Amino acid sequence: MSKKSPPPIDGLLGFAQVDHDRARRCGFPEVILGRGKTPAQVAAIFAELATRADRVLATRCSAAAFEAVRTRVPTARWNELAGAISWRRRAAGRGEGLIALIAAGTADLPVAEEARVTATLMGARVETHYDVGVAGIHRLLRAVPRIRRARVAIVVAGMEGALPSVVAGLLDRPVVAVPTSVGYGASFGGLAALLTMVNSCAAGVSVVNIDNGFGAGYTAALVNRPARR
Amino acid sequence: MSKKSPPPIDGLLGFAQVDHDRARRCGFPEVILGRGKTPAQVAAIFAELATRADRVLATRCSAAAFEAVRTRVPTARWNELAGAISWRRRAAGRGEGLIALIAAGTADLPVAEEARVTATLMGARVETHYDVGVAGIHRLLRAVPRIRRARVAIVVAGMEGALPSVVAGLLDRPVVAVPTSVGYGASFGGLAALLTMVNSCAAGVSVVNIDNGFGAGYTAALVNRPARR
Amino acid sequence: MSKKSPPPIDGLLGFAQVDHDRARRCGFPEVILGRGKTPAQVAAIFAELATRADRVLATRCSAAAFEAVRTRVPTARWNELAGAISWRRRAAGRGEGLIALIAAGTADLPVAEEARVTATLMGARVETHYDVGVAGIHRLLRAVPRIRRARVAIVVAGMEGALPSVVAGLLDRPVVAVPTSVGYGASFGGLAALLTMVNSCAAGVSVVNIDNGFGAGYTAALVNRPARR
Amino acid sequence: MSKKSPPPIDGLLGFAQVDHDRARRCGFPEVILGRGKTPAQVAAIFAELATRADRVLATRCSAAAFEAVRTRVPTARWNELAGAISWRRRAAGRGEGLIALIAAGTADLPVAEEARVTATLMGARVETHYDVGVAGIHRLLRAVPRIRRARVAIVVAGMEGALPSVVAGLLDRPVVAVPTSVGYGASFGGLAALLTMVNSCAAGVSVVNIDNGFGAGYTAALVNRPARR
Amino acid sequence: MSKKSPPPIDGLLGFAQVDHDRARRCGFPEVILGRGKTPAQVAAIFAELATRADRVLATRCSAAAFEAVRTRVPTARWNELAGAISWRRRAAGRGEGLIALIAAGTADLPVAEEARVTATLMGARVETHYDVGVAGIHRLLRAVPRIRRARVAIVVAGMEGALPSVVAGLLDRPVVAVPTSVGYGASFGGLAALLTMVNSCAAGVSVVNIDNGFGAGYTAALVNRPARR
Amino acid sequence: MSKKSPPPIDGLLGFAQVDHDRARRCGFPEVILGRGKTPAQVAAIFAELATRADRVLATRCSAAAFEAVRTRVPTARWNELAGAISWRRRAAGRGEGLIALIAAGTADLPVAEEARVTATLMGARVETHYDVGVAGIHRLLRAVPRIRRARVAIVVAGMEGALPSVVAGLLDRPVVAVPTSVGYGASFGGLAALLTMVNSCAAGVSVVNIDNGFGAGYTAALVNRPARR
Amino acid sequence: MSKKSPPPIDGLLGFAQVDHDRARRCGFPEVILGRGKTPAQVAAIFAELATRADRVLATRCSAAAFEAVRTRVPTARWNELAGAISWRRRAAGRGEGLIALIAAGTADLPVAEEARVTATLMGARVETHYDVGVAGIHRLLRAVPRIRRARVAIVVAGMEGALPSVVAGLLDRPVVAVPTSVGYGASFGGLAALLTMVNSCAAGVSVVNIDNGFGAGYTAALVNRPARR
Amino acid sequence: MSKKSPPPIDGLLGFAQVDHDRARRCGFPEVILGRGKTPAQVAAIFAELATRADRVLATRCSAAAFEAVRTRVPTARWNELAGAISWRRRAAGRGEGLIALIAAGTADLPVAEEARVTATLMGARVETHYDVGVAGIHRLLRAVPRIRRARVAIVVAGMEGALPSVVAGLLDRPVVAVPTSVGYGASFGGLAALLTMVNSCAAGVSVVNIDNGFGAGYTAALVNRPARR
Repeated sequence: MSKKSPPPIDGLLGFAQVDHDRARRCGFPEVILGRGKTPAQVAAIFAELATRADRVLATRCSAAAFEAVRTRVPTARWNELAGAISWRRRAAGRGEGLIALIAAGTADLPVAEEARVTATLMGARVETHYDVGVAGIHRLLRAVPRIRRARVAIVVAGMEGALPSVVAGLLDRPVVAVPTSVGYGASFGGLAALLTMVNSCAAGVSVVNIDNGFGAGYTAALVNRPARR
Repeated sequence: MSKKSPPPIDGLLGFAQVDHDRARRCGFPEVILGRGKTPAQVAAIFAELATRADRVLATRCSAAAFEAVRTRVPTARWNELAGAISWRRRAAGRGEGLIALIAAGTADLPVAEEARVTATLMGARVETHYDVGVAGIHRLLRAVPRIRRARVAIVVAGMEGALPSVVAGLLDRPVVAVPTSVGYGASFGGLAALLTMVNSCAAGVSVVNIDNGFGAGYTAALVNRPARR
Repeated sequence: MSKKSPPPIDGLLGFAQVDHDRARRCGFPEVILGRGKTPAQVAAIFAELATRADRVLATRCSAAAFEAVRTRVPTARWNELAGAISWRRRAAGRGEGLIALIAAGTADLPVAEEARVTATLMGARVETHYDVGVAGIHRLLRAVPRIRRARVAIVVAGMEGALPSVVAGLLDRPVVAVPTSVGYGASFGGLAALLTMVNSCAAGVSVVNIDNGFGAGYTAALVNRPARR
Repeated sequence: MSKKSPPPIDGLLGFAQVDHDRARRCGFPEVILGRGKTPAQVAAIFAELATRADRVLATRCSAAAFEAVRTRVPTARWNELAGAISWRRRAAGRGEGLIALIAAGTADLPVAEEARVTATLMGARVETHYDVGVAGIHRLLRAVPRIRRARVAIVVAGMEGALPSVVAGLLDRPVVAVPTSVGYGASFGGLAALLTMVNSCAAGVSVVNIDNGFGAGYTAALVNRPARR
Repeated sequence: MSKKSPPPIDGLLGFAQVDHDRARRCGFPEVILGRGKTPAQVAAIFAELATRADRVLATRCSAAAFEAVRTRVPTARWNELAGAISWRRRAAGRGEGLIALIAAGTADLPVAEEARVTATLMGARVETHYDVGVAGIHRLLRAVPRIRRARVAIVVAGMEGALPSVVAGLLDRPVVAVPTSVGYGASFGGLAALLTMVNSCAAGVSVVNIDNGFGAGYTAALVNRPARR
Repeated sequence: MSKKSPPPIDGLLGFAQVDHDRARRCGFPEVILGRGKTPAQVAAIFAELATRADRVLATRCSAAAFEAVRTRVPTARWNELAGAISWRRRAAGRGEGLIALIAAGTADLPVAEEARVTATLMGARVETHYDVGVAGIHRLLRAVPRIRRARVAIVVAGMEGALPSVVAGLLDRPVVAVPTSVGYGASFGGLAALLTMVNSCAAGVSVVNIDNGFGAGYTAALVNRPARR
Repeated sequence: MSKKSPPPIDGLLGFAQVDHDRARRCGFPEVILGRGKTPAQVAAIFAELATRADRVLATRCSAAAFEAVRTRVPTARWNELAGAISWRRRAAGRGEGLIALIAAGTADLPVAEEARVTATLMGARVETHYDVGVAGIHRLLRAVPRIRRARVAIVVAGMEGALPSVVAGLLDRPVVAVPTSVGYGASFGGLAALLTMVNSCAAGVSVVNIDNGFGAGYTAALVNRPARR
Repeated sequence: MSKKSPPPIDGLLGFAQVDHDRARRCGFPEVILGRGKTPAQVAAIFAELATRADRVLATRCSAAAFEAVRTRVPTARWNELAGAISWRRRAAGRGEGLIALIAAGTADLPVAEEARVTATLMGARVETHYDVGVAGIHRLLRAVPRIRRARVAIVVAGMEGALPSVVAGLLDRPVVAVPTSVGYGASFGGLAALLTMVNSCAAGVSVVNIDNGFGAGYTAALVNRPARR
């Protein structure tokens, strides 16, 4: 690169600008998207963030990335299903509030777990209700009394993605819906589930991107936070 | 038109070839699609069919078309919601078998009624369960014992179209799903509901075209027919 | 309709089943979608709901529908931009919490106002920031200090729908994004804005259907409600 | 996972909740979707189901999965074309009723065979008519007399998916249409065939998802079952 | 418009440049697309072309446009179904070669007739076979011996558009397929039929735009022309 | 609206915030989009802008809107084809630089003229080359020597939108391509032309929205401006 | 498979029904699509066809498939670019008529060569004009005099697919257009080129599937055949 | 290939026609698209062009391709991020004019660097502003004073692609927008970003294909060139 335009991506890491200001502005530090980065790159950014933030999250990482991170940040933790690496400076407490995390099928669990790791790291208490798809509606109905105690619900579903509509019709709390790419044929990589959720006939449903467990966990954790006093 | 290629669309009516053979081949005479035809045209075809068939059906008709038909076939009947005109030579009996006809919202009723008129005219007994959408799932659950007595269920739903999946998970009978164009925005004229139903996680669901109440009623009536002996 | 299947849509109103249970289950009574209903039908349902609920809302209504409602419920109010009719039994207070309602252009106001009427009727205090699209980003930046005081933000935008991403990057509160059908050509009736918002690079954004101001107001009002004690 | 939310996915198998109730509710036990599961996982679920159900089916499995299953359930059978593993406690009889299974091309056979295995395991007699695509219509016409003896027809076709329309025009029985992803270019992974079948001009056609041989076999077997007495 | 850039669209007619060279280059004069033009405009262009060309064609015209043309070109002829106005300087002969023009349903006739007028005006002999859709395949089969005498076939079909595949499988001549916008729901304005035809499993099928009867007639007439000597 | 949230859209006009700062920031004042506004609204905003800016432009206006504007700004001018109203404080000069404005067919002229009015008002000299579509490539080739003198070319085309690729292959200047919604069937409202232009094999082509003549004229005028000194 | 339904896919080859009747009906024997078949399968079908037909063609084959074929049919020939294996019983003559085969870029050559092999084997004389894309239109213009001598033109193009429109505007013969999947981004696997060609503003263009060189060669060869006497 | 049609793709290189005339016509020699070519092929074409042109560019190349080129053109240079190989006969000067090259995220850098290499080789001075996405708008705002000095801006963004709208609202210079395929789920390989940019509410934005850094750099360099004198 020429002198006129000094490479803006050098800095400490050489390949990324770490936005240390994000935590102050948005209440949570920048999150590392592991996909497309080498284990060494993930580890370098993770360690850099851990020098200043009190919580660090990396999503969609390989096990090798976790191994690389652990050599630099030994107390980092690994969620294999989600492919998520997390670290917090201080021991986690019980968590505040309550998020009900509901998933339709076992194939949706990687996305659900990404949401769980994210929301937990942001300080929320999360209660999971997995494998309660609409094809066996009684499983969901049994769980409703506990779900109704939550401040907000996350509902994860692939294929036809019908679960959020059913859940929202049973609650007086907001539902964050996550379509997943689970399915085949006319699911078109999650598009069918996304459209289903966006068209929900039940009020109180809002939707994040296909497979975006992180976004759902983040949004739900913001909802779950107490109002400022 | 030249003599070489005599107009094939004259015949008795001048504007359509009536396929009197259909009833023998498929068990039901040709059905008149009213849309795009003048009241006089609908009445002419209807009267022509009534000379030989013992049942006649015209779908998607205007009230004016019904008035025109009635002047020629006085015992024809009118279903205003569906826009359907039907006639049968002999008085209807109780109907054979049982079809459960389920619709999610009141806006879906024109399509549901088209299915009901069709299946009834084909000899089926039809029991309706309307306004039982997934946003208030208890309404559907109350009806399940009666629905389970049917030979086949038709499920009509617009917007996200989630109802067939829930119904199919509660039955051991086939479900014919009908997406409707009810909705707005990302419902894309019923595409969202169609994709939902095609991707159903519950086995036993098959799907007809958007707003195709006729097709669903026809298919369900075929399923409902007793096996040949 | 035959005796076997008594018309399930008679009841008090003859054309709709009023779900008086919704308020208990979801915290808000059933909402009337005015589109496709005659003024008389809107007025009849509105009056019926007003006998038992303490708040009633009808969306996407014509001025004629409002006139019809007013003859039966004289204290009903009319929001012309939104086409919304609302009524509450008791005088409105100041509203609880705070929702920041942000709209990109003047053509987006009908959708934004639908959100405002909905959230206000559900008890929220709403502060509007209109005409602050991304093509003149300084207008938004000036409003940020006030927006940051809110519990949740609604962001309404058509065309390319970029505003929610910018807003979410400046807040530590959830953003409910509403794509509108404002635009032409490759906006495809709001699809472009919907995709933009679903793909937001800023965490904390969740999305409702195109032009669904009601859904956004409803969701934001649920977020805005204080936690149970 | 925290103590507050005990992992709901442990149970006997640790990675899936087996729904032993499905057979009672829907008339057939839960089916294993092999794709995305290791051979050991397939074998474990298969063996677990075989302890209580009298029939077990696993679809879209590898030969390795079959080898793993066979070590635990020695009488399991393997359909290589379909990638399906099936087992039944008692010897199969002749099958009841009759399903005509029609496939357009040799590339459609894996999907057709999945339908055959499913329907046969559910107790139906299935007669196959393969390689009878519309480009050589005489092949189909020759088979019509036999096809007309069936209670229901399954029609499997890729590319333009025209076969179900032709078949339905020749029968007085329902047709379950299965689009396949066979094709290239503008077949868009089976979307072209799906649209063709949904738009069928012949009455009596209903459609399942692209490549969903299992769903077609299941639906047809439900249709084929005798009415309750 | 400024003097610097003199309006290039003045000329004789003021609103269009007549391309009198087209007939020499492509063997047929420029064709007038009536849609979007006033009757007076159609008549003016028609009359202008008739001064130099020996054949003139205007498609998608209103009856009013025909009346306007007739006042200036009294021997012009009107095809009401197609909305086509044609004129030829010399009396038409028997036509050369043979085009088989096949249409699936009566709703497809406007498009088919546009093809017929075009091809006839270009000198071809055209034989029509209308209302021979795939839902009653015997109607087509009866016509095959005559169809096989043609040099090229045009096949017009809406809804699922399956007819060209069946026809092409029976001929050793090229098939020009025309999808129509006839249909509803998932026909998406003819897209379903277009995809069907493009994916045809039968060799020898090529496709023109949705509802493009003119293009099909033009292409078939070019195919029908004898080779140069 | 409540006192808490004073209506932000009052100001001088009551229904829109006029952004008088735009001219300073972007070099051209805010442009009025006439569609969806009453003639009185267009006139009010137009007159307001004319008090401070030295040029005003309103696009997609009706003749009635122009009449309303003229009563308040008598020297405003009207381009009927484009539906554009323009006004400038001082008499226009010859224009600087040179933009070649090329349109494929006469149906594309409204869009082309919108580009012309815009670019001219921004100070550019514009030379038009209309009705030079690719189906008669010689018309374009004749114009190439003049086109090559321009600083930038705008190319407007509907249907298949092939013209920009051909033009860009003949120039060493940038080409701003404008797809139009001219066409039918599989043109999908201009999507086909948009995709064509985005995929251009010729370097130097960039694309604006379907029918966005204003955007193309604006972009080309920015390109045409001399560099700052 | 059960005795009731004897496997219809046994025959000589066990995995495919060879349609020896095709040559009589359509003038050319069945063509082998190599994709998805093992080299041994291709070779077996190829050899079987060679026992009765006088020409055999297999498309989309690997070099390994050709090696396998050659061991059984030593005089088979290999076109590496197209991946096509061909064989004819008698030496090829000069070919009849003339097809002009035009391709836009070098990446389109595999598809063009598939067309060439097909048409040549069907008895046509083929003259190629490769690498004449619209970005350098002079290359095409130089070739026009030779192209105009042909009975029919095949035009192969990827990316924006503009070439067929330009060619058709210069000829009085039909143009068979072949979109290719060459491109990236918004070419969507050839969809952009397909739409371009279907929307061609030049009359006489008809289109085959994306990358369907075989279909184009086949169609053009049918057009090229002399009329029956 | 037959003698009648001598292979047009032999020439010097055997597999490609080098268009040595392009530099004269368009101001820049033909560019090599490395994808789909072997290292030896890239090297051969590169060396051939270097014999006559004074600048050569190859995009989307592997490191192996660069090694192959370097053996034949030792002074060729390699940009690893972009996968671009460039060479110029004479040492590069400071570059003329100024292009501001802005990229939203680090994942967008390969596309941005492709634009940088292209524009630089065409003689422009390029200043980069990387990692300035809309989720942290302050980063962009800090850079605005420098960006405003440029003749034209290139803006590269994936996911929701909102950045060009914000940038264009701050400039009085044209913005060339490049959507990238960075993203997942409903980004649909860059389609979401493409639609966002095409629908930009800010005037002065034009768009190139997804990931087309080359096209953006080329277009911007043409804009940046001084007017002819």
